[in-house]
Amino acid sequence: MLYSELFGKTIKLDPKDEISKNAKLLIKAGFIDKLMAGSYTLLPLGLKVIKKIEEIIRSEMNKINAQEVLMPLLHPKNIWNETGRWESAKDIMYQLKKNEKEYALSFTHEEVVLDLIRKHVFSYKDFPVKIYHFSTKFRNELRVKSGILRGREFVMKDLYSAHLNEEDLEDYYWKVAKSYQKIFKELDLNSKIVEAGGGVFTDNITHEFQVLCDRGEDTIFYCDKCDFAQNKEISKIKGNDSCPKCKGLIKTSNATEVGNIFKFGASYSKKMNVSVLDKDGKKQFIHLASYGIGLTRLIGTIVETHNDEKGIVWPKNTSPFDIHLIDVPSENSKISELTYDIYNELIRNNVDVLYDDRTQIGIGEKFKDCDLIGIPVRLVISDKTDGKIEYKERNKNETILLSKDELFKKLT
Amino acid sequence: MLYSELFGKTIKLDPKDEISKNAKLLIKAGFIDKLMAGSYTLLPLGLKVIKKIEEIIRSEMNKINAQEVLMPLLHPKNIWNETGRWESAKDIMYQLKKNEKEYALSFTHEEVVLDLIRKHVFSYKDFPVKIYHFSTKFRNELRVKSGILRGREFVMKDLYSAHLNEEDLEDYYWKVAKSYQKIFKELDLNSKIVEAGGGVFTDNITHEFQVLCDRGEDTIFYCDKCDFAQNKEISKIKGNDSCPKCKGLIKTSNATEVGNIFKFGASYSKKMNVSVLDKDGKKQFIHLASYGIGLTRLIGTIVETHNDEKGIVWPKNTSPFDIHLIDVPSENSKISELTYDIYNELIRNNVDVLYDDRTQIGIGEKFKDCDLIGIPVRLVISDKTDGKIEYKERNKNETILLSKDELFKKLT
Repeated sequence: MLYSELFGKTIKLDPKDEISKNAKLLIKAGFIDKLMAGSYTLLPLGLKVIKKIEEIIRSEMNKINAQEVLMPLLHPKNIWNETGRWESAKDIMYQLKKNEKEYALSFTHEEVVLDLIRKHVFSYKDFPVKIYHFSTKFRNELRVKSGILRGREFVMKDLYSAHLNEEDLEDYYWKVAKSYQKIFKELDLNSKIVEAGGGVFTDNITHEFQVLCDRGEDTIFYCDKCDFAQNKEISKIKGNDSCPKCKGLIKTSNATEVGNIFKFGASYSKKMNVSVLDKDGKKQFIHLASYGIGLTRLIGTIVETHNDEKGIVWPKNTSPFDIHLIDVPSENSKISELTYDIYNELIRNNVDVLYDDRTQIGIGEKFKDCDLIGIPVRLVISDKTDGKIEYKERNKNETILLSKDELFKKLT
Repeated sequence: MLYSELFGKTIKLDPKDEISKNAKLLIKAGFIDKLMAGSYTLLPLGLKVIKKIEEIIRSEMNKINAQEVLMPLLHPKNIWNETGRWESAKDIMYQLKKNEKEYALSFTHEEVVLDLIRKHVFSYKDFPVKIYHFSTKFRNELRVKSGILRGREFVMKDLYSAHLNEEDLEDYYWKVAKSYQKIFKELDLNSKIVEAGGGVFTDNITHEFQVLCDRGEDTIFYCDKCDFAQNKEISKIKGNDSCPKCKGLIKTSNATEVGNIFKFGASYSKKMNVSVLDKDGKKQFIHLASYGIGLTRLIGTIVETHNDEKGIVWPKNTSPFDIHLIDVPSENSKISELTYDIYNELIRNNVDVLYDDRTQIGIGEKFKDCDLIGIPVRLVISDKTDGKIEYKERNKNETILLSKDELFKKLT
């Protein structure tokens, strides 16, 4: 893609009214635009990142035999009344009335999933059921000062699993937890599984996936030796205590939540009367669990943990492009010609390249924009490179000169 | 995929409270589920179809140099006040209030797009701007008796183009119209470009893409010789008149709208003060057009126009699977073995296959479900096929027996 044609270029000034690093960087680099507090447009660069994250997650969901669906966002009041959450979750839920009918915007989908199951699954042989979707969530968050880490509207992947009994749920629950850890690792995020409260979802203990991060909104206690970790909100221990599990040292850190998993048992299905006859002909209420990953929040977390003083430093598999190609405006017209050649040959080789072809922008500014945007590899062609191409990785300082052949050998 | 594991199987009874053919067939065949009037969940089969339609549209959008973004669904009141549509579109728009702030759910995105342009585009050289997204629309439709053809919540691809002047807009407008015709043709829909009114969008004439269809909600007049066509709502002629353009005969038909394109000129950008200095330094208000295709509505239209008394007859490129494989329960265990072999070999050859592996379902019911679901090719393996495979296309009556080699030659 030609940078001159890209919608959403870099912005020079720091955005007013943003205090979080992720929002500042993403806005300045042209990935997102703020419509209002807690609500952002994904510009072409931002959408490319989301699509890559989505593919990584979808591939893992399919591996654990979950099936993709798409559930509505506008829900009738009556379905929320069945579990009592029309009242109990009133604060977080956007509710509205139109032509004497009342609706809620989806902040989660347990009720809709259980309604689907009671309408579509009639035999114990059809359990477990595992369905997920990528869709928009709306939550009336009071504090939205963390940029894209906490939005009032955001994209989420939510998975729901329904089981005949607790043991089967327990098995799958930890299978999903493992799958989530794989996803976060692929996204180059070091996540910890942390015990936490259930908010408007459940009174049970839930598990959050927390990424250590200075500017995270949560505080967690974790053991430096074993996998013990708790959210401060529910913890009875504190920093420097000894670990209740292994006697290691408990550390304290800010962290940002990237995923959350919940065991509901049969609580919701009893309220909604979702049951099936088991193989002995006995009525069993369905055991439900749900599992969420915030995609827009992941972009924010990657940026919070992958940046330097010059800008974003994308991991390879979530970068909007593979290559940032720059040519230096010059009187020697051959340079542009060579750059266009390289550009087209990269495209032919399925290398996704952003070419900063702007003619009235100096090399200094192009380098600055390139570092701000943060694509893993920068290629420069100028008078000084003498027919060769200068290759530099975003997270390294050294540059090397490569011939065209050497370049393609390295890249493809 | 094994049919025994699919979430969303066929349903025997006709759904109560649905009068449209598309909703009846899609619900019975397991593609969609109704949450409430005008709002449906896409089950795995339905989502697979939507994804295929989405890819066909995305590929065409990229060919006309449009860039994909994702804009929010919940909008602040103030942005709708800028154009006056907070009041003028009050009937169709869902509005809500939370913590003393007022919001609207997106029924369209012109205001958000113009806001993006005034914040991100500062030079005449950066026009035209062409951005699109796939996202959810909410419209308070009073009559929702047409199944998935008219929803209160639905998935839409909307494209917006912004230009320095009317001529450039006019050029691109017809380029998009051509691109839309290509899309509908690829979806095996015979669409006509029909002059229509602009509703809450504009007082100008707009153009609809209408597919002739007995159960369509619109009535159109069209010439049997030339491309003249008008929606009854704005037309001054009637059936059997002579064509005002070529004197051909005017015909009348029910039709269903699958796309709609609008020229706004500078009307909205004047209200929102979106302008740029042209190359002579003169302030120009931006000329805007928008272009919509309803994806969920397309599924409904394809089903309305592609069915027979037995069920749906999917076109190849939007069918949820390439092949519907059936084996006949038998005491000869070799049959199942052969079927699994074929099933796995099809998958290895990237043929997307739905295998009805249910053991307690008779062949009659399997055939019925197969015809209802409507995948283009049915393969049957039974005692009678004697090691060969019976091949039948959904829209033909004849069956042929093929050896494994012959089958793979035919399919891959």
